[in-house]
Amino acid sequence: MLSKPKLFNLNKTLTLESGATLANVTIAYETFGKLNADCTNAILICHALTGNSHVCSSDDDSTEGWWQKSVGPNKAIDTTKYFVICSNVLGSCKGSTGPTTINPETNEAYGLSFPVFTITDIVSAQAELISHLNIQTLYAVIGPSMGGMQALTWSIKFADRLRKCIIIASSSSLSPQAIAFGTVGRNAIISDSNFNKGNYKDKKPEIGLSIARMIGHITYLSKESITQKFGRRLQKKSDYGYQHSLDFQVESYLKHQGEKFVDYFDANSYLYLSKALSYFDLEKQFGSLKKAFKPTTASLLFVSISSDWLYPTDQTKKMVAACMNLNKHVTFCEVNSDYGHDAFLIENEKFDRLIGSFLGSSS
Amino acid sequence: MLSKPKLFNLNKTLTLESGATLANVTIAYETFGKLNADCTNAILICHALTGNSHVCSSDDDSTEGWWQKSVGPNKAIDTTKYFVICSNVLGSCKGSTGPTTINPETNEAYGLSFPVFTITDIVSAQAELISHLNIQTLYAVIGPSMGGMQALTWSIKFADRLRKCIIIASSSSLSPQAIAFGTVGRNAIISDSNFNKGNYKDKKPEIGLSIARMIGHITYLSKESITQKFGRRLQKKSDYGYQHSLDFQVESYLKHQGEKFVDYFDANSYLYLSKALSYFDLEKQFGSLKKAFKPTTASLLFVSISSDWLYPTDQTKKMVAACMNLNKHVTFCEVNSDYGHDAFLIENEKFDRLIGSFLGSSS
Repeated sequence: MLSKPKLFNLNKTLTLESGATLANVTIAYETFGKLNADCTNAILICHALTGNSHVCSSDDDSTEGWWQKSVGPNKAIDTTKYFVICSNVLGSCKGSTGPTTINPETNEAYGLSFPVFTITDIVSAQAELISHLNIQTLYAVIGPSMGGMQALTWSIKFADRLRKCIIIASSSSLSPQAIAFGTVGRNAIISDSNFNKGNYKDKKPEIGLSIARMIGHITYLSKESITQKFGRRLQKKSDYGYQHSLDFQVESYLKHQGEKFVDYFDANSYLYLSKALSYFDLEKQFGSLKKAFKPTTASLLFVSISSDWLYPTDQTKKMVAACMNLNKHVTFCEVNSDYGHDAFLIENEKFDRLIGSFLGSSS
Repeated sequence: MLSKPKLFNLNKTLTLESGATLANVTIAYETFGKLNADCTNAILICHALTGNSHVCSSDDDSTEGWWQKSVGPNKAIDTTKYFVICSNVLGSCKGSTGPTTINPETNEAYGLSFPVFTITDIVSAQAELISHLNIQTLYAVIGPSMGGMQALTWSIKFADRLRKCIIIASSSSLSPQAIAFGTVGRNAIISDSNFNKGNYKDKKPEIGLSIARMIGHITYLSKESITQKFGRRLQKKSDYGYQHSLDFQVESYLKHQGEKFVDYFDANSYLYLSKALSYFDLEKQFGSLKKAFKPTTASLLFVSISSDWLYPTDQTKKMVAACMNLNKHVTFCEVNSDYGHDAFLIENEKFDRLIGSFLGSSS
């Protein structure tokens, strides 16, 4: 059964960080569990770059969600206890308004006429949804990767609207190396002969998007995990093919990941969200991390992954240091895992213990 | 003044590792300094993936070479003392026979009908050149990166034809992660709408080749060097452009590197050489590193770079351990540098001391 998120129409025009405005914004979301009478048990989960609102299966939709192992009845994020909300981010292609949406002014898809937006803009739209759900204060905001950037932004911009904040495998800004990988992917999309300045219809920039995904995928895996998973093993057990075909298992795996992705995700959305990732920079936005976290009142849990080279522990430690310096209530743990950035989707049990106990604690 | 390498025509048909044969092979080469009377002062320098025979300037060609700072009169590889030979590898596009060469049987460029070849095949062709130059035993074979793989192959396959061997920032096989980056680049080339199964003429697969180069370039830089060189600095000092253009300096740098490369290098040659890199695997070829190095008689100097994540020190140490185990004459040094894989082209002085003293030593 396909995921059918609920739709929330913002009744206001969003003014974006760039100064541009965006009217008629719809946010797709799903909820899991029940909101208690005093509306104090709501948890917002923020998804990563290519995620969606379907964080776990539900009565309405039995399909497994992207964080199925960690979210659900009696799981680390326990939907018998908490009212869990997960919304598709602004600019994505999984139900919320984005470049694939029909612009009511032109009756055509926005394409590249969609305004460039930021993580702050994504969070502003989320906040409207939370208000719409009659929730003043969230019990927690939780996010991995790009979701962690949203959680950070919640803790700063809407400091009085959350009690706890969990930031997993994220950063206060992408490293220059991560920007470099991102720009190669964006270039591959924009240079694709089918891109047509974002006005593609039947013929889509599939090659560019798959190349972008393949690059991304390598950065989500650690050197160790790619070695353990594939090594230098060949497709055919015998020997090299001495052709320009894919000899190694890691080659066909990556190609498959790229090809699968183009059926699932929109190239323009990828461009916008990848740009939003590269723009996120708390130091730039606030002058310093110390200034950034000044308004924060939520208890913070930072979790990094030992083998994550895309969002390395050092970057998390900088944020932790700034928060400690400000005497914030901050907890930090580096999860020891060989799985790289994606470990939070693989070795869930290691994260579940941390998340569960942090959510259950009284402070 | 443009480089005009000499041309050597092999008078035999090469039988490649794949079993395929290749006739009419020409190898482009340059020499620097003078061969002494007993032909004992010759050094072969093997270039990296996209290199050429012009390792340094000469009386015939004043253009700076790719290793200008380290090779020349009174430099670490001293052309007043040694007779230095540098040849363009088989399959490249810098003078030696490769996919851009006209196939005499069809009067068209080989394109993808050129046989897939290996590092061993490259070295076999080089060995013919060395014989043609009346050199039975080379004083040394030296190579960085893919050149190191050639040097390794010399020390094994032609063990009695070299006295010293210097392997810089190289490996006995690419890591699975390096294969992964390589396959994305090759995919970008092959999927380019101008690729035309390798039979491109006026319209070249420039987009694919530039994407491949951009990916490669990131892997040649370390995380530290990319941060030091560019950080998150913007093109315009003011702020983000909120457009789908290049905001960050690292973005325009990479794009420029990609664009520059397509004027310099052939996409088919890149495919073949990248494939040869991925095929190189001494463990696979010989059963183990210990078996591989068994015939080696040359003194070996291995140099790795502390921040090189493409050819990391661990891989060099494995080779060193195998050679020590066999009681070979082996020297190893990890150069401490933040510049990543490309450090041998940047912090030359650190390598020059090692190379100079190793070449000058009596053993």
